[in-house]
Order: sequence, then C-alpha cells, then structure tokens
Amino acid sequence: MSTEKPETVYLDHNATTPLHPAVKQEMTEAMELFGNPSSMHGFGREARANVEHARKTVASFIGADSANLMFTGSGSEANNTVLSIFSCSGDSCSTGSGRTGEKGETNNRKTIITTRIEHPCVLETSRCLAGQGTPVKYLDVDRYGKINMDQLSELLTDDVGLVSIMMANNEIGTLQDISEAARLVHEHGALLHTDAVQAVGKIPVDVDDLGVDFLSMSAHKIYGPKGVGALYVRPGTPFCPFVRGGHQEQGRRAGTENTLGILGMARAVQMRSEEMEDELHRIRALREQLVRGIESSIDDVVFNGHPEDYIPHTVNVSFPGAEGESILLYLDMAGIAVSTGSACASGSLDPSHVLLATGTDAERAHGSIRISMGRDTTEEQIGYLLEVLPPVIRKIRGMSTAYIGGNTYAQTG
Amino acid sequence: MSTEKPETVYLDHNATTPLHPAVKQEMTEAMELFGNPSSMHGFGREARANVEHARKTVASFIGADSANLMFTGSGSEANNTVLSIFSCSGDSCSTGSGRTGEKGETNNRKTIITTRIEHPCVLETSRCLAGQGTPVKYLDVDRYGKINMDQLSELLTDDVGLVSIMMANNEIGTLQDISEAARLVHEHGALLHTDAVQAVGKIPVDVDDLGVDFLSMSAHKIYGPKGVGALYVRPGTPFCPFVRGGHQEQGRRAGTENTLGILGMARAVQMRSEEMEDELHRIRALREQLVRGIESSIDDVVFNGHPEDYIPHTVNVSFPGAEGESILLYLDMAGIAVSTGSACASGSLDPSHVLLATGTDAERAHGSIRISMGRDTTEEQIGYLLEVLPPVIRKIRGMSTAYIGGNTYAQTG
Repeated sequence: MSTEKPETVYLDHNATTPLHPAVKQEMTEAMELFGNPSSMHGFGREARANVEHARKTVASFIGADSANLMFTGSGSEANNTVLSIFSCSGDSCSTGSGRTGEKGETNNRKTIITTRIEHPCVLETSRCLAGQGTPVKYLDVDRYGKINMDQLSELLTDDVGLVSIMMANNEIGTLQDISEAARLVHEHGALLHTDAVQAVGKIPVDVDDLGVDFLSMSAHKIYGPKGVGALYVRPGTPFCPFVRGGHQEQGRRAGTENTLGILGMARAVQMRSEEMEDELHRIRALREQLVRGIESSIDDVVFNGHPEDYIPHTVNVSFPGAEGESILLYLDMAGIAVSTGSACASGSLDPSHVLLATGTDAERAHGSIRISMGRDTTEEQIGYLLEVLPPVIRKIRGMSTAYIGGNTYAQTG
Repeated sequence: MSTEKPETVYLDHNATTPLHPAVKQEMTEAMELFGNPSSMHGFGREARANVEHARKTVASFIGADSANLMFTGSGSEANNTVLSIFSCSGDSCSTGSGRTGEKGETNNRKTIITTRIEHPCVLETSRCLAGQGTPVKYLDVDRYGKINMDQLSELLTDDVGLVSIMMANNEIGTLQDISEAARLVHEHGALLHTDAVQAVGKIPVDVDDLGVDFLSMSAHKIYGPKGVGALYVRPGTPFCPFVRGGHQEQGRRAGTENTLGILGMARAVQMRSEEMEDELHRIRALREQLVRGIESSIDDVVFNGHPEDYIPHTVNVSFPGAEGESILLYLDMAGIAVSTGSACASGSLDPSHVLLATGTDAERAHGSIRISMGRDTTEEQIGYLLEVLPPVIRKIRGMSTAYIGGNTYAQTG
C-alpha cells in the first residue's frame, strides 16, 4: 500500500471523509476486541457490551433510544432495508424477537412515494420494486431542489405506505422540510423515511423533532469507517429484515456485528457532537469565501441548490462552456479533489439526475462541479482553490468552440 | 473500551477469530487511505487501486479471476445475495455494467434446493422466499451430516434453478462432496452455490476444481475483520444485485466500498495462503489430542460429525446428561471459550437444527458443545481444557437427576 502523494486539498467530503484521529485511535484499540457479540462466553459478552455502548452513543446523537437503532453495512443498505419492508410478503420473513419494529401489518398500503433527487440507492431500489409490481410515485422539485408540500398532499392517497425523502441532498446540499413532510405523511396514515446520510453530523438531527419513522445514516461521511451505517426504526412500525438469517440487531439484520466499524462509528459520532457546532460556523464562513471568490473571479457561473435551506458544506456550481470532468481533472493535477456529483453515480456519462430534476439543461448539468468541505478544510485551502480555478475555467472555456460567454443562467444562491 | 481480562483460552474459532497481527498492521496503515474508490480524483484512484489489488489477492486464493469476485458486507449477505437472484423479477433490478454475472434469464427455473444443515442465513432466506412463492426443497443428511447424492438427483427436476450446499458445516465440521454435487447439478441444468465460509482458509478451495457457480466466504472466520465477505460469481450466470443503487462492484452491489475491511480481508487471505498448510497438520494433531483426551477421561460421550470427511478444526461432542449451556458457562468461568453451536443461532433455546437433522435427539443435542481450534490454539491450551472439562461434566451430570449414565449413544467419530 503506497500512501505517498504530493500535498493535496481534499474538497470532496460528501463522497467520503478521512477517519477522525480519535476514530483511528479507537479502532486501533478495538482491534483487540475480537469476540463475536453473539457468543455467550466472556469474549462475546465483552464485544456485545461494547457494541451496545456504541449503539447508545449513536442513538442518543439523533435523539433516539438505542433499542430503536440498528447497525447496517452502509447507508445504502439502510435505505434498501426501509424500501424493501413494504414489499415483504409476510410472516415467513420475520426473524428474531425484535422489541420494536416488529414485522407488522402494512395494511395493503404498498405504494411508495419518493423524490426525483434521491440517492441512486433509493431510486434504483424504487425502480426495481416498481418492476416487481410496487407502485412508486415521484415528487418533483423546484429549481432549487425543494419538494412541494401541495404535491406531496396530492400524492398521499390511501394506498401509500411509505414516503422516502432525503433530508440534505448529496449533490446540491438542499435541505427539505422533513418535519412538515412527516406531519402531512402521518395525517394520511403513511410512514416517513428520511435518508439523512448527508445531514447527520453536519446539522442537528433529532428523530422526534423531525417526526420521522425511519432515518438512515452512514459513518464514513462523518469521519468514521466505511462499511457501517445505521437505521433508526420507530417503535411500532412494520419491519422485515433485509439481510436475513440471524438474530443479530434484535432479529433485524443477520450477520456477525462489525464491532470494529461500529465502535469507529460511535467514536465518529461522539466527535461530531463535540465539534459540529463550531465547525458549522467555520464552514459557513468558508462557504462565503468560496462563493464570493468564485463570483468575483469567474464570469457566468450558476450556483445550484437552495439559496437559504442548505447544508453549508456543499457548494455545487455550474460553469457553462466547461465540462465538469475536465475541471475535475485539471484541479486534480493541481492537487485539489472535487467531484462532478455523487461518487455513487460516477462512472456514468449521464448528466446528474439531481440537476436535471431542478430543470437544469443537460449542458449546464455537465458543466457542474461539487465542492464539499469538512472539518479539515481551511481558509488557505479555499484560497488555493480560488487561485487555481479561474485560469482552469478560462482554459477549458477557451478550448470549447461552443462557448460564447454571457450570464444567461444567472440564478445565484 | 476495556480489554483487560484474565488469561483465557479461546476455542470458538468457528464463531469468529482474532485479527492476525499482519491484518492489524495492514489495517492500521490502511486507515490513511480514505478516498472513495468511486471518486475520479487522486484520492479515489489510490483507494480503487488498493481495492482492486485486494480483490486479486482474495480471488486468486480460491482460483478465481478477480473480475468474478465481489466484496460483500458479510458471509450472510453473500448467501442472501445468491438466494435472492432467483426470485428477482427482471430487468428493472439490473444496475451497472458488470462484465460477468449479468442479470440473465433464469429460465423459469425458480425452485431452490438446499440442505437441512445450512447456516441460518440460508435457511431463513429460503423460508422467506418460500413464503413469497419460491418452491424450496430440502436435502436430508445422514447421522454424520452428509447429504445423499441419490436424493439430490431425485430432487433435481426441471424447475430447479439453484442448489445451495454448505461446504463445511459450521457446527459439526462435516465436509460435503461439492464437486460431485456440482456435476449432478449441472447435468440437470441448474447452478450450484456453496457457502464455504467455514472451509476457505482452512482447507484448499478452488472454484474450478469444485465446479461451483457461486461461492461465499467471510473475512472474520480467517483472522480478518468483521463486516466484510466475498462472493464468487461464475461468468455467465444470472445475477441481480441485492443491495441496489450504485455502480460499485461492477454494478453488483451498491454502497461505498469498505476499503479498510477489504484490505484487511486480503491480508488475512494472504496470511492463510502462507500458514494454512502447516496449520492443518498442527490442528490435526491437536484434534487427535483433544478427541483421545475426552474419550479417555469422560464416560459416555458422542462425537458428532463425519468420521473422515471433516474440517479438523471443529470438534462437536455430546455429553448426555449435561446441558451444553451449563458446560459453556463452567468452562467460561475457568477462562475457556467454547460454544453450544452456531453463534448466529445462539440466544435461541431450540436445540441445534444441525444435530437434529443428523437424527440426534433433542436431549443429546442440548448436551453438546463445539470446540473450534485455530492458528493460536496450542497443545497446552488443549491440555488445560482436558484438565478442566472432566470434572465439569461430572459436576453437571451429578446435578442432573435424569442422568443415569451408560454408553447408549456411542457413535464415536
């Protein structure tokens, strides 16, 4: 394994984050803790006690009781789990003795509502379920990526069992009003899931304040390890295991607990609870520096996402006439890491489904980059980006015969 | 996190294993490697290169091409993935551009055959699929836990798509003749999956020698980290993602790759390739010491499992008149960790489904313990167990009014 590289500026925190030093320390120590939490002997009991302690830490960070928090292998698995509950056929799938979130009646409410700007793991699963006969309805978003509560009310017919709305969008940072959505959804007898992977640890999140029934989170977006996520399941909601065949996680998920990952996640969450508030102020200032810097040094730019309701860590900006991938590669050569959108959708040549859903045309969508900041981002790093970016954009635009300049799209946020 | 405990003897390697020192070293270094393997920039490319190198290491250990090996979140997830392929409804579920293992026709061959002694993650998933309309047929086993090839032939009707047979049983260590099963299964146009979680890394396993179409493995059974497994998928076989919504693993599994876990798994596998052969000889001798020691010091014992075709690491033994859980707890007080069966089934008061399937009566099944040895097991440790165990059994039997002694069940292996 080689880790040597020139000094670099990492501005892709929405894709993943480096481990927090305290998490590295925790995980290094936890490597000695090898027992299987399901084993009855001392090794097992010690592992279990540590896992349950970690569960309390993670649960309390989102205002939940630890009995209602299950660990998963990723945020994607947490989202897949929720969406699959409503296509579960019956008692044959129930395992374990789960105190909460028992397999229950879904009252023939099989329809799922979600938005057009969800993470691929929600959209693909929805498409797959639709192919298997589950009706799926989609909420549109406005040009800032916000859903419309009137449309939600209209779509909430009696057959709707689950509504899944991302709390903070991973590409453009737009925040939805989840508590208002929860109120509407519950009024119509359905349940609300929120994919809060990009929100938890960046802004305060409380499952009771939000009123959600399911909430997904992930460790590696908040300086914890990859390969571990968590799902909050409100007591009394229907549940069906996704990974089946073991009594782990109160019968909600089979497979030996990833003790090391779980302990790392808990430490990451603990550090978030200590650092999040100060960081939020710092990141707001960095965002201001970044947005003003881009506006003052580059012509014809469009900031994507909501002008007020956003996660400040994420800045998504379009440079008409410049391909996002080219920008990314030029910045990479200068030691700066940004992305063109979701890492989970990268490799695809299609323009961002999120930007398209906001009404952005394909060309501008292709000319967008996402700059996502984190706890290690500094004023100097943003300064360096602001030094490198303008000539890069000029260079790429200069190579593009199609680009004629102008401020046509200005919709600055 | 407290890790202090009195000196202990760990004889529960089938439940999980401690991290190999080389794995700890690898993972400690890999903590710096934080990029998302899906990101296009340098951080991402470096992570990807390391993951792909790890994939080659793991694949080549089982004689596979790395293009045909996908990482999963556990052995249980690998098994769930395979079983779910045949209940996948269609193209709406296919993602990514997978070079091999594309979503393909399953030719209306929806029936699954499995055995009565599989891991719960196979049996529960089968039961769940059966509840959703997938026909499932079960192979019986003889008193040593072996399936019968004639019964397999009989069950292999034209509607059978998948046969899932565990290579080495986790509770009694019995090995099945997987290559003979593969020959029969292919003769009848079906595909063979083997859950090789307890075999890989203990005995030589080669996907081509075995002729299997799918093979599941897990890292934490072979001194690697928990939370990571792998699935071999033979090129050309049908495939449908289980965790959906990302292009990762060639479109076969969504979710950011668990780089740390994957690198740890690869190092664990590499150490297995270096240590496995010598260890096998050493464990055979320890098994001899253990079995002879128990036979010569305790009356009325029955060794469960096959007398010849077994993984020597596993010794499952019944002590009629003594409850397995009581034995476990007394041994635990003496600092010795064994189990009463599968950790994944523990917490349940039902007798082992594996022992029941071999025709063992419920009382004897309840009176069984599993002693599973590993790379750290020593002659001295087995000697200590042989010192502690006989008085424990005498004590427990003395407390049991039902026990009258005798050698009724003798079926020593």
